[in-house]
Amino acid sequence: MADFDTPYINELINQFGQLPGIGKKTAQRLAFHILSQPEEKSQGLARAILNACENIHLCNICCNLSDRETCDICTDESRDQSVICVVESPLDVAAMERTREYHGLYHVLHGAISPMQDVGPEQLHLRELLTRLQKNPEIQEIILANNATIEGEATATYIARLLKGTGIRTTRIAQGLPMGSNIEFTDEVTLAKALLGRQTI
Amino acid sequence: MADFDTPYINELINQFGQLPGIGKKTAQRLAFHILSQPEEKSQGLARAILNACENIHLCNICCNLSDRETCDICTDESRDQSVICVVESPLDVAAMERTREYHGLYHVLHGAISPMQDVGPEQLHLRELLTRLQKNPEIQEIILANNATIEGEATATYIARLLKGTGIRTTRIAQGLPMGSNIEFTDEVTLAKALLGRQTI
Repeated sequence: MADFDTPYINELINQFGQLPGIGKKTAQRLAFHILSQPEEKSQGLARAILNACENIHLCNICCNLSDRETCDICTDESRDQSVICVVESPLDVAAMERTREYHGLYHVLHGAISPMQDVGPEQLHLRELLTRLQKNPEIQEIILANNATIEGEATATYIARLLKGTGIRTTRIAQGLPMGSNIEFTDEVTLAKALLGRQTI
Repeated sequence: MADFDTPYINELINQFGQLPGIGKKTAQRLAFHILSQPEEKSQGLARAILNACENIHLCNICCNLSDRETCDICTDESRDQSVICVVESPLDVAAMERTREYHGLYHVLHGAISPMQDVGPEQLHLRELLTRLQKNPEIQEIILANNATIEGEATATYIARLLKGTGIRTTRIAQGLPMGSNIEFTDEVTLAKALLGRQTI
């Protein structure tokens, strides 16, 4: 692929191309969009990136992203201090909050155990979770809301084993039919999980 | 969709979401990628945007993007000064250059006539093209390499009409079967164009 005659455009394409899910063609399209729109708009994106990098850090308790030392959820005393929901990413916190069904605390692992991608338990924010449990005897339940993927399952199993013997109740969110789905079109693994997880009504 | 509790993340998502082809979900994913990678890498993207905005301008002759007042192609005296290839975008210049079959000059319109998107001939860099033609009597041919879309065709027809009576030869690049294609699977419009454009072999 022929490159452009200026290092500025090539560098911009290269930088966009390093973002996840952005290939060479999309990177080119984005770069030319940046150059074709009014300069202030493009500078707005650059400024947003720099501001976010500068101001967003991990909450010192739950490891969620926040612009304060301790995030809004951890400092909110009206929330149930006896439950921690363990999730893989900050986006999962947002998804859980959207349900309006959960009023406890969170702990963000920032990943899942994945030997394929060279991610072991030590790369996740598990140490912070254990410290939290030691410091806060009021915690009674850990809800494992890891993804329903192989990596998520492995991570949930790992944490459950880690917490065995601590006396803290460890639960895993249910797996089964998503709302609006037909049994006919549901894959067999999901259906098996739904059967195993059946509850008396 | 619940937003995040910090304006920095929301602004970053909002900014990414304004890029073409980037929806809300992708914008979120990109924003969290920016926040999860080492700070220098994210700052690299911001810097690339700012540098490109500052240094890239339109060439004062052909309207292609360049970091000089006049671009490399326009200043290259070894190129055929008697032909100008008219294209819609700087990406098209790169595509034409990749063929290694064209050694003339370019003119970048930055768009195509599109009443649906409120783009008229006056928004394209047509005045610059006409000035070029007046100033350079050595120009003998204008190749219209607009896209083979309704907008591209309309723009090509418009320019061809504009140049009528100037004595300059105006040509349109051929439309027909793309290489490697089967007649069986070719749409009827392309096939009709291929028939109409047939040449003696």
